[in-house]
Amino acid sequence: MKPSLAALLTDFGARDPYVGVMKGVILSKCPAARIVDLCHGVPPQDVAAAAYDLMTSVSYFEPRTLFVAVVDPGVGTGRRVLWARTKRHQFLGPDNGILSWVERVEKFVEAREVTNSKLFLPAVGSTFQGRDVFAPVAGALLQGARPERLGPPARRWERLAFPAISRRGKKILGEVIAVDRFGNAVTNLGFAEDVPRRVFYCRGKAVGRLAAAYAAAPAGRPAAVVGSSGFIELALRNASFAGRRRVRVGDRVEARLR
Amino acid sequence: MKPSLAALLTDFGARDPYVGVMKGVILSKCPAARIVDLCHGVPPQDVAAAAYDLMTSVSYFEPRTLFVAVVDPGVGTGRRVLWARTKRHQFLGPDNGILSWVERVEKFVEAREVTNSKLFLPAVGSTFQGRDVFAPVAGALLQGARPERLGPPARRWERLAFPAISRRGKKILGEVIAVDRFGNAVTNLGFAEDVPRRVFYCRGKAVGRLAAAYAAAPAGRPAAVVGSSGFIELALRNASFAGRRRVRVGDRVEARLR
Amino acid sequence: MKPSLAALLTDFGARDPYVGVMKGVILSKCPAARIVDLCHGVPPQDVAAAAYDLMTSVSYFEPRTLFVAVVDPGVGTGRRVLWARTKRHQFLGPDNGILSWVERVEKFVEAREVTNSKLFLPAVGSTFQGRDVFAPVAGALLQGARPERLGPPARRWERLAFPAISRRGKKILGEVIAVDRFGNAVTNLGFAEDVPRRVFYCRGKAVGRLAAAYAAAPAGRPAAVVGSSGFIELALRNASFAGRRRVRVGDRVEARLR
Repeated sequence: MKPSLAALLTDFGARDPYVGVMKGVILSKCPAARIVDLCHGVPPQDVAAAAYDLMTSVSYFEPRTLFVAVVDPGVGTGRRVLWARTKRHQFLGPDNGILSWVERVEKFVEAREVTNSKLFLPAVGSTFQGRDVFAPVAGALLQGARPERLGPPARRWERLAFPAISRRGKKILGEVIAVDRFGNAVTNLGFAEDVPRRVFYCRGKAVGRLAAAYAAAPAGRPAAVVGSSGFIELALRNASFAGRRRVRVGDRVEARLR
Repeated sequence: MKPSLAALLTDFGARDPYVGVMKGVILSKCPAARIVDLCHGVPPQDVAAAAYDLMTSVSYFEPRTLFVAVVDPGVGTGRRVLWARTKRHQFLGPDNGILSWVERVEKFVEAREVTNSKLFLPAVGSTFQGRDVFAPVAGALLQGARPERLGPPARRWERLAFPAISRRGKKILGEVIAVDRFGNAVTNLGFAEDVPRRVFYCRGKAVGRLAAAYAAAPAGRPAAVVGSSGFIELALRNASFAGRRRVRVGDRVEARLR
Repeated sequence: MKPSLAALLTDFGARDPYVGVMKGVILSKCPAARIVDLCHGVPPQDVAAAAYDLMTSVSYFEPRTLFVAVVDPGVGTGRRVLWARTKRHQFLGPDNGILSWVERVEKFVEAREVTNSKLFLPAVGSTFQGRDVFAPVAGALLQGARPERLGPPARRWERLAFPAISRRGKKILGEVIAVDRFGNAVTNLGFAEDVPRRVFYCRGKAVGRLAAAYAAAPAGRPAAVVGSSGFIELALRNASFAGRRRVRVGDRVEARLR
């Protein structure tokens, strides 16, 4: 059960040494730790974006990976610290919903509230608990600390609502749930048999039909593709769909039968 | 021949978990893999920029490094996957020219088309083959898979034309082939004996003469320097030459004898 | 005394392969090296920003960490290369003051000018000594080279002045010394007993009083918090204080007794 690998996910960005310092702490607790950056480009305080990244990434990591997810707008307040375990992986993060979409992929079989301050750095501040709490606890787990040492079992934890799709007649209504570096707009619409017969709309404006690949779309015209996480993406070949159309997370998407 | 190190080069950026997921897959195939990020800031779909980064970087890596280069606008189409080997290094990438400038530095002694889908993830999608194809193949190679298992020998592969310089009378004409974070504009002009006697122009406007170092240029005035890859760079001390002059890749450069 | 870990701090950013190449060189000199990125997002040529990052980070790294800090506007000129050691850590960087604020936390017990060109790459250029000088020297140290091999003892080194606070009557006057990704403005004012009784001003405009945490501030109104390095930060809950108020490093800060 000792984790074999730590995968870090934060909104700390690349401008400051915050991620580097977290690794310094983890390695000082567990010199042999293997650490991978999952992503540090989560928009500041965007818990849902991090939850999405985690949900779409966990399956690709080896059993016993410990995911340390720190997007933590409530740092320094009474928000709890949560550790959880599925059959394959472990998770550590603030109890603000950041871990909750993982359960769409893997169910938690054990969860604990992390309360044992002996595992924290000696002086815990109110602004950077990635360093003072999450990193040393991760280091302790990687070094072999047993989960029972973390704190008492947790029975409830915060859950973020996952954006729901709805139907109106033959229309399927959804929304944009992520926009990536390439300007692809990921929707919450999954693939279904009738998808090839549908035309997609975003913010009320036609996008196009399903294409087999980004480069299979007609040049200069947007299209839908089945993205890497199984959701329909709206994309523009060799260009940024979201940039051109000013699309953001939360924007409305429709799939109409022709 | 088993690679000792994987060096990753992509246009995936830092905003999304794409690079992290590739590492998850590599490590799940080869838990002991050593992985280094060469760069993930290649502009989206800019195959030539990645080819340039690879060309200027390979010499500095240990023998048996496997470079995994994924800038892949044709993902999901019929474009081939290429593996190649020089006397010192190995390379894996889409067959779109991304690997072709390496041969200006090290010649390929063996090349294969990667066709063995047993080495891929079980479900290969059409949008993220960095995860579904390149990462698991890299993991297999790092774990000791023999190159013969990848697929049949490749005799041809895509080559990008390297921007040529030309002469008109005593003028040398070239172009900007890269702009770096500091705003230094790398040209395709190499150092030659008469370079110190030349004045450089960019987009028709005088830049200056050769300086011994960035900080050796007159304050506030741009100059040329011999850059880290042997090409002439146009630079502005403690400031961005490309930013001030709005210089981009492809812009025309001249070196005139005074 | 052989370093156990290398922590890299540069202004090289994520757009170019410069950091990747440095790692390639370090690993080619010391294949077993453990390398951590402290940060590569230092603003170009901003030696003070790097000095600040180093000062606030070193304590969190294991004993025997070697910090390699390369923000080097004087590269290629006569500026010296400095190696120094404290009781806990080692440091390597250009002698331009980048290492000097470390001494506010840990005193140097030994320092050397790095002059032994046998430790450098064979051809040292004038633009990228992170690759040609700092990386191979770091690799040699990690591989066990004794510090005496680096060069002669250094008795003096460049020191950057640390921004001083002053008092005028009951006012404390300071300045912004860093702005982080979240838009928090770190000041040079430390915590003192009377801080809870003060009101903070930035650029002459009231900010607010001390809050226990970012999320403890009144919604939509800025506040001061004790930041992760013990300095007072000016912050805006779930938003960018520096962005809204257009605050930059160097801007004046006041703490007035109510």
